[in-house]
Amino acid sequence: MSTQHPFDKALALQHSDIRVGHFTGATSPDYWNMVGPFGGATAAIALQSVMQHPDVLGTPIALTVNFAAALEAGAFDVQATAVRTNRSTQHWTVQITQPGAGGAPNMTTTATVVTAARRETWSQSDMPMPEAPRPGTVERLSVGPAGVAWLDQYEMRLFGGSIPAKWDASLHHSESRLWLRDAQARPLDFASLAAMSDVFYPRVWLRRAKHVPAGTVSITTYFHAGPAQLAEVGTGYLLGRAVGQQFFNGFFDQTAHLWSEQGALLATSNQIVYYKE
Amino acid sequence: MSTQHPFDKALALQHSDIRVGHFTGATSPDYWNMVGPFGGATAAIALQSVMQHPDVLGTPIALTVNFAAALEAGAFDVQATAVRTNRSTQHWTVQITQPGAGGAPNMTTTATVVTAARRETWSQSDMPMPEAPRPGTVERLSVGPAGVAWLDQYEMRLFGGSIPAKWDASLHHSESRLWLRDAQARPLDFASLAAMSDVFYPRVWLRRAKHVPAGTVSITTYFHAGPAQLAEVGTGYLLGRAVGQQFFNGFFDQTAHLWSEQGALLATSNQIVYYKE
Repeated sequence: MSTQHPFDKALALQHSDIRVGHFTGATSPDYWNMVGPFGGATAAIALQSVMQHPDVLGTPIALTVNFAAALEAGAFDVQATAVRTNRSTQHWTVQITQPGAGGAPNMTTTATVVTAARRETWSQSDMPMPEAPRPGTVERLSVGPAGVAWLDQYEMRLFGGSIPAKWDASLHHSESRLWLRDAQARPLDFASLAAMSDVFYPRVWLRRAKHVPAGTVSITTYFHAGPAQLAEVGTGYLLGRAVGQQFFNGFFDQTAHLWSEQGALLATSNQIVYYKE
Repeated sequence: MSTQHPFDKALALQHSDIRVGHFTGATSPDYWNMVGPFGGATAAIALQSVMQHPDVLGTPIALTVNFAAALEAGAFDVQATAVRTNRSTQHWTVQITQPGAGGAPNMTTTATVVTAARRETWSQSDMPMPEAPRPGTVERLSVGPAGVAWLDQYEMRLFGGSIPAKWDASLHHSESRLWLRDAQARPLDFASLAAMSDVFYPRVWLRRAKHVPAGTVSITTYFHAGPAQLAEVGTGYLLGRAVGQQFFNGFFDQTAHLWSEQGALLATSNQIVYYKE
């Protein structure tokens, strides 16, 4: 098992009776962020609990994850419940809890997932991939010993909107563009696509060149791919773009897009982020 | 009570013990759509159940509503539950049900709401309001007897991306721009802002000039305003913009922005929509 990919280790869920949708897992040191797990890993776990459920219908369409509290290092419980199954769509609620003081569960995360049995239809994009240099020509982000663990799990090559080299409170536009894939090769799946939708550092840091406290409160990701489109990517790069929209009294939103290297828009994602000052 | 605004009638919720967060209401004929209520009205009801709860902390930041099934005309139950209260944020889950066959509740809608006690901070926009003609110079959308009821509740003045006059399968860009307010004057509040985030007709109709079956599956709205910003709008116009992003095998997403006439971005919203063919 020593060759298991760190992401698969982070996603590993145990169950006693899978049909009730109750799973247990443990936070991964490989995807640790400052004061809790990387939110993208938590989002992936919420999605994974649904995808592993024997009752799941089709593939994911929409995922919303609300980060109610940082998970503490250690074990957690996941409850995935299919609350409505239609002919071609299915609605799930997910809650991640940890044992709290006095044994009462501590609610850390709520999520909703919509899955669907897709059919082939007319398809089109109104959001073309931006112009980009080839991945090999862009310098890889080096994280170094001061970095947080989860950043080491991704190969990121930013060609616009890099994290400010100086926190000099100069004002910038809040857009970043990068090439992105797992640092250790792993074929793209819905869980990793969900996680990669959350790799973009808080736009407020870029916008203000100021390292204020910030953390995602809620993220929503829409999936625009089936298994065939993910298989086409395999272990290849995604092109990611993220930009802030509105910064207002302690919260801002940022929107993100992830394309395959061939230009297919695979996921669109939005999040609202707390910030201080 | 005959002077009560139709939106306030649609939002009216009764409760026996408000602290348990259980409310009852009834669908409004004024906001009826083709096969169920206007989704914006349902989203507003989900939000309203939280805002009416005596335990609510602050004002809404994020709202996700999943339309699991169309509500039938008549009574419904709403359960709003605060699952986590932090120092400055609060996380809610909401479920709307109707009595089903054999008395088992029929899950029609799930939602999550995040509220927060905002503090004044540095604020800025990276999404300026588009250029627009004055509202008075733009023709008002006339709905007529063939229209669906909820459209009559809004004054909409489109100046780009009107609903195609001919379903001739010609291809268009999927962006619409309009001035928007309640047809019957009503000061803007969070509930009406939530509803207005869903007024944009399915982008697939515009994109394809083809009237295919389509319906919102899930909508997420972020609020970028406090009571003072809403009061500044009062009964004035909002500028709305919506555009499709990716259309893929039966589902597409559209993103929407709502600015005050003075140019403040009050809400950003995204939805994923089912479509046929």
